Amino acid sequence: MRLASFKYGSTSSWGLVAETHALDVGTVLANRFADLRAMIAGRGYDDVAAAAPSARHIPLAEIAWRPPVPNPDKIICVGLNYEDHRRETGRPEAKHPAIFVRFSNSQIGHLTPITRPHVSENLDYEGELAVVIGEAGRYIPADRAMRHVAGYACYNDATVRDWQFHTHQFTPGKNFPGTGAFGPVLVTPDELGDLDELRLTTKVNGVIKQDARLGEMIFPIAELISYCSSFTQLEPGDVILTGTPGGVGAKRQPPSYLMPGDVVEIEISKVGVLTNPIVAEAEA
Amino acid sequence: MRLASFKYGSTSSWGLVAETHALDVGTVLANRFADLRAMIAGRGYDDVAAAAPSARHIPLAEIAWRPPVPNPDKIICVGLNYEDHRRETGRPEAKHPAIFVRFSNSQIGHLTPITRPHVSENLDYEGELAVVIGEAGRYIPADRAMRHVAGYACYNDATVRDWQFHTHQFTPGKNFPGTGAFGPVLVTPDELGDLDELRLTTKVNGVIKQDARLGEMIFPIAELISYCSSFTQLEPGDVILTGTPGGVGAKRQPPSYLMPGDVVEIEISKVGVLTNPIVAEAEA
Repeated sequence: MRLASFKYGSTSSWGLVAETHALDVGTVLANRFADLRAMIAGRGYDDVAAAAPSARHIPLAEIAWRPPVPNPDKIICVGLNYEDHRRETGRPEAKHPAIFVRFSNSQIGHLTPITRPHVSENLDYEGELAVVIGEAGRYIPADRAMRHVAGYACYNDATVRDWQFHTHQFTPGKNFPGTGAFGPVLVTPDELGDLDELRLTTKVNGVIKQDARLGEMIFPIAELISYCSSFTQLEPGDVILTGTPGGVGAKRQPPSYLMPGDVVEIEISKVGVLTNPIVAEAEA
Repeated sequence: MRLASFKYGSTSSWGLVAETHALDVGTVLANRFADLRAMIAGRGYDDVAAAAPSARHIPLAEIAWRPPVPNPDKIICVGLNYEDHRRETGRPEAKHPAIFVRFSNSQIGHLTPITRPHVSENLDYEGELAVVIGEAGRYIPADRAMRHVAGYACYNDATVRDWQFHTHQFTPGKNFPGTGAFGPVLVTPDELGDLDELRLTTKVNGVIKQDARLGEMIFPIAELISYCSSFTQLEPGDVILTGTPGGVGAKRQPPSYLMPGDVVEIEISKVGVLTNPIVAEAEA
């Protein structure tokens, strides 16, 4: 299934996404599930399939894309999880994944502008695979971790670099409103086959800036889920961002940051293409 | 006002706290406010005062204390905000506060045991002042920041030290379930006078381990609110943990960690005393 959360007119809903239109399954199942996160928590996939034939078709051009999970309880971000990115940052090898947090109020959907805050000129892209948790768990063994996945999506963990490095803790640079681009769709695992072979690319104005296979991750998805579930209870709808490959703007010579008017595309084969223009925030 | 969230019998509510009893104001105002966070967001202080005379009295011995705000949208933690703690950690002086995040599902209330996870023997205390946001805001100037405060509470930002230092990012060591002790009460600013003169102490089994004046903070509360509101929108009920003074167990010679059976008390003058015993988590 290819699932999305969206608005059309004044309606906020969720449903399935086909080539040219979305199916408003959320309205059909409104009495069962408040939103896509609730459907995931309730494992309502059979209900979705059953509701699809009676769901209203909305042309994709008429929907406003929201993050597939607009309201995750947690967004757990993994840093430095591709070797070429680790090397370009000069960080040593590590026995554990580096973990920081993004708040859900920083998220936006496909085609929504990413906001460069007026307090910085150092906005950078980070193309990533987002893993959405389907089944809650604590102390999940790696060999059972993939059963806890609801699906996958593209994510642009856009970063305000100077604020990321105000201190040794990354939080400020990772939480500006309108910087966490997520979508367009959440793709269930059965659609994807071998994840390692999928290609992740980031383009700015059509030019490839990051290009990696998901199999290049230092800590694979199952280990990330297992590790994160050791220090916190994972819940349905939680998002794990699995890290970005080498090629970020900050490490180019000279550094190259996103400018208002730029367009960033995060593409993961079989998963989709997430497109966001950059806008400048008005001065307060 | 001294406000708290609590359970008694099967009832989950909130209200005012007096010397010997709590007043179940939440039940009286249930049609107006779902919980204490909603009351804060709705600035329902006059309603609380009006409801108090008809609120049921519950002896304090009969209530189970919950965190004053059990469900904050965000818990923003400040590291290294007292000079003696900065020095004991060997960190350089910084122009900005170090910011990390605690998830709300790690929180517990007064008298609830803090859980030492079975994956570590390095559980440590961190006595702190918690600031609860009352009024939402973004880009809040420091000279207006204190107007955004709903109140203050004691917090034990209990930390699993080895997991804190798995990498350069603190997140894992700050998020184990049952480690964020918060309470017993939220005290409104009008009760406290000059915050700088208040004394923060941490005792383990009755022995003082940390002892500071709140005025010793490197970045004062108003600056913390202003800084955090620059990179995220603050919401009513959000919690800012303002950092811990020197004297943590990890930096003692030899290091001294919390053991099952220990009792930790965080006291802030005029605010209250937060008491939590330590228990060991059963092996999975």
